[in-house]
Amino acid sequence: MTKHPFKSNFFEDFRLGQIIHHATPRTVSDGDISAYLALTGSRFAIHCADTVARELGHPQRPLEDLLVFNIAFGKTVPDLSVNAVANLGYADLRFLAPVYAGDTLSCESVVIGLKENSSRLTGVVYVRSTCYNKDGVVVLTWVRWVMVHKRRREAKVADPFVPELLTSVPKDDLTARARIRSSEALEEWCEASGSAQLWDAYAPGDRIDHPLGMTMEHADNMAAARLYQNNSRPHFDGFGMRQSQIGQRLVYGGHVISVCRALSHDGLENAVEILAVNAGTHVSPTLAGDTLYAFTEVVDRFKLPNRTDVGALRLRLVGLKDTIPTDVEVASTSMPNGGSAYHPAVVLDLDYVVAVPRKAQGSNRHD
Amino acid sequence: MTKHPFKSNFFEDFRLGQIIHHATPRTVSDGDISAYLALTGSRFAIHCADTVARELGHPQRPLEDLLVFNIAFGKTVPDLSVNAVANLGYADLRFLAPVYAGDTLSCESVVIGLKENSSRLTGVVYVRSTCYNKDGVVVLTWVRWVMVHKRRREAKVADPFVPELLTSVPKDDLTARARIRSSEALEEWCEASGSAQLWDAYAPGDRIDHPLGMTMEHADNMAAARLYQNNSRPHFDGFGMRQSQIGQRLVYGGHVISVCRALSHDGLENAVEILAVNAGTHVSPTLAGDTLYAFTEVVDRFKLPNRTDVGALRLRLVGLKDTIPTDVEVASTSMPNGGSAYHPAVVLDLDYVVAVPRKAQGSNRHD
Amino acid sequence: MTKHPFKSNFFEDFRLGQIIHHATPRTVSDGDISAYLALTGSRFAIHCADTVARELGHPQRPLEDLLVFNIAFGKTVPDLSVNAVANLGYADLRFLAPVYAGDTLSCESVVIGLKENSSRLTGVVYVRSTCYNKDGVVVLTWVRWVMVHKRRREAKVADPFVPELLTSVPKDDLTARARIRSSEALEEWCEASGSAQLWDAYAPGDRIDHPLGMTMEHADNMAAARLYQNNSRPHFDGFGMRQSQIGQRLVYGGHVISVCRALSHDGLENAVEILAVNAGTHVSPTLAGDTLYAFTEVVDRFKLPNRTDVGALRLRLVGLKDTIPTDVEVASTSMPNGGSAYHPAVVLDLDYVVAVPRKAQGSNRHD
Repeated sequence: MTKHPFKSNFFEDFRLGQIIHHATPRTVSDGDISAYLALTGSRFAIHCADTVARELGHPQRPLEDLLVFNIAFGKTVPDLSVNAVANLGYADLRFLAPVYAGDTLSCESVVIGLKENSSRLTGVVYVRSTCYNKDGVVVLTWVRWVMVHKRRREAKVADPFVPELLTSVPKDDLTARARIRSSEALEEWCEASGSAQLWDAYAPGDRIDHPLGMTMEHADNMAAARLYQNNSRPHFDGFGMRQSQIGQRLVYGGHVISVCRALSHDGLENAVEILAVNAGTHVSPTLAGDTLYAFTEVVDRFKLPNRTDVGALRLRLVGLKDTIPTDVEVASTSMPNGGSAYHPAVVLDLDYVVAVPRKAQGSNRHD
Repeated sequence: MTKHPFKSNFFEDFRLGQIIHHATPRTVSDGDISAYLALTGSRFAIHCADTVARELGHPQRPLEDLLVFNIAFGKTVPDLSVNAVANLGYADLRFLAPVYAGDTLSCESVVIGLKENSSRLTGVVYVRSTCYNKDGVVVLTWVRWVMVHKRRREAKVADPFVPELLTSVPKDDLTARARIRSSEALEEWCEASGSAQLWDAYAPGDRIDHPLGMTMEHADNMAAARLYQNNSRPHFDGFGMRQSQIGQRLVYGGHVISVCRALSHDGLENAVEILAVNAGTHVSPTLAGDTLYAFTEVVDRFKLPNRTDVGALRLRLVGLKDTIPTDVEVASTSMPNGGSAYHPAVVLDLDYVVAVPRKAQGSNRHD
Repeated sequence: MTKHPFKSNFFEDFRLGQIIHHATPRTVSDGDISAYLALTGSRFAIHCADTVARELGHPQRPLEDLLVFNIAFGKTVPDLSVNAVANLGYADLRFLAPVYAGDTLSCESVVIGLKENSSRLTGVVYVRSTCYNKDGVVVLTWVRWVMVHKRRREAKVADPFVPELLTSVPKDDLTARARIRSSEALEEWCEASGSAQLWDAYAPGDRIDHPLGMTMEHADNMAAARLYQNNSRPHFDGFGMRQSQIGQRLVYGGHVISVCRALSHDGLENAVEILAVNAGTHVSPTLAGDTLYAFTEVVDRFKLPNRTDVGALRLRLVGLKDTIPTDVEVASTSMPNGGSAYHPAVVLDLDYVVAVPRKAQGSNRHD
């Protein structure tokens, strides 16, 4: 009777090497920048003022990295995961080019792995998704894998192929878009960011307990997912979710990441841009009414190839719910079986890399 | 004591033929586009990307038709209905010219009918409202009728005049703004919309059960009405409404329409623009917490004068609350008295016309 | 263990005459204008349409005065009050130059007073804060005083200095930005504002009961504070607040002011811009679920130096919760001790000055 029962793909619809052009290219604008501010309260200075962005080599303020990611991710949902059983993970997310108001983003995905589950009811699809701007420049690329229903249990599927995934983006592949050309620019940046604590001041093992918390609301969660045109049902459909095991709408994981990144500003004011996300785990669901807090562990500090103005920090961002960071000594402990046992308050475990300005140095900086 | 007890008009203040210039002209912007996305999650491709809009003959992405309608409608509320007893209906809504970021909209209404009710406490005012852009071009026009209080029961009123209203906008008066100039443009459009199902594939009697649902929140309802500067009290005034029969704030009907149109995307991806609304009924109130679903019935399919690139579909969009479309066999049944008995889940019954691209054909399309 | 336990200043960190450059300069845009509309529903016509603003001498619509104030205020929070015991008051707020989409705002504060409390646990810091646009023009300046914790009770502090504060901005210092150059412009303005009631029609002692109410939501409160990048904890941290005496998040006072100003439109349609705020008191906290109403008392009417097109009204804007204005005869009564006893419904008492067009007059106006 109905013409379009559900457009999204089932496991047996995917083919290895298949290219999927995602619908709904999207022009981004100052409106998105303000909406993202209203949703997250983010204060990373490069995204807030054209004047600051210009000091760092941009023609105008670039969009927040995670705003771009969430919009790009949203494009892939109708084809890949609107009907998925579970998002299993993502990896090798690289931010490669800045995005400005006026740019138009489009996305495509390539199927890089397929593996039916032993139940034969579901399978895992691995895709590399890539987001382009209007000039065809790659602004963002990432891998994710999703468990997807089969339409019919008995449907034949191809031989399994599980791609090898990077556990971290190679350091030589990291691309810092911001440039600090003089010690004056560095000083102005630090005034704009509100902190003089630079790359050199962080060391592996450091931990930063971010002081603020933010309570989740259904209205915010839905506004975020709608802004990203992410039509994944669990974020919107309260009636349907009341009949599920969870019993209520889930906060979109990308919103959780955005909020935790915004909370991490205090103590990481100079984390000027995100270079990569190595891995991310939504340890447990976040619900309306939960208050999110966050702490950061510095995992690694390293130089970037051919760059003396900014260096990289590999960070572990841990999101907590209804528990302040000082009450959580360790986020997780390794288990004998190779897995992790998480503190019950942990909702997010994000392994990512940021660029941070380095102390001015050397002859070309006369300070 | 108070200088402005209430500015809005009462029934005896209206005169047949009276022209009302509505206050607060409004410049629309990318900010409104993003706010509308955050409120509805709409994915109709022509409104999302400048690149897509240009392929269809626009200089940039036009605002969503219902965003424009809601803003225009909001302008009329302070003069016509802020103090109304009830909005009784609307008809003959025509979208005549595209609206872009940067345009300034203003509205006026003409009183086209007046009829006192037998109680002499209220009367019905019929108006034609028209919305102009800054160049004075009509972008939108519609008729609505509202039941309005009299200030004094004994006030004398003019002889009743009830205008004859069209039950549907004449086909020859429909104006498709989008143009598809080549089969390449059509292909690119279909890639952007995510569907290859064109006008030719729909037929009267078809029904499309849209798969997604969206739960209403007070914050969204109020944000929508405020964005449209619609100051109608029942949407905002929780304290006042708690003392009314309904007991709580009502979701603005225009927001219900916008959400149902956004939900209707899945299955109507190529409903590229709204040409007209013939009639709309808010069958029962929508409240915060309700989850909206929608299905569409194809009422008619017809060609547009002098156009081979797009055709028209007359659709019936039925909004449901807390009930999925497959659970509703028929939206309403005719009653012996000429009225309709609605399924108890129905909140919206909208009779409207969209333009949909047609299959490429003929000599000027070399495919 | 943690590198940044809390960046904000304690009482002993402040020095008289100290200049604080606040972080995070902010480019404002059409996105902010739309977000502010969606948060307040404001209908003051000069801010809504470029066409209307141009008639009054602006190149385009200026941002709402209180939107600019809230953004500027938000900049000062991380340095001055993120950890404050209480915001005690503000005074001498002057709006000096219009702000347009595309402007970049930055803020600095000067410490103009310091006084330790007798407990030696806290002290009061007085600051003058100033907001500049990208050309270095002062757009806004104000004084506020805040009670701040000491880090250590025994810390030595400077001799107390309490600045003398103006109880109202001197009339000669008021700067009306809007200009009405002809009686035609005045007529067009009145059509845009929806009211012909000009400066001449108001008189000290007048009271205006604004008809509408608006219910507060957590989502709106947080979206507002986040848009202003105001990271003050009580507005966001539901978990922390549940453990406080108040037991729940507080609505940001600046949002309360914005909403009351928006509500005051009906009856003050021609209050074209805010010139100054003399004083403001948040009489009692506003919480989610409260419905705000407002009334205005005209305190004074006076001419502006060298201006015949607009005059000034000094107004007292009284915000109420869950009580309609007609149920409140007086907002407050003077107490024998010199203080005021407020009606229990009062949440806001704002003493401010607006510019209002005057009746066209004199030879250069040929009417």
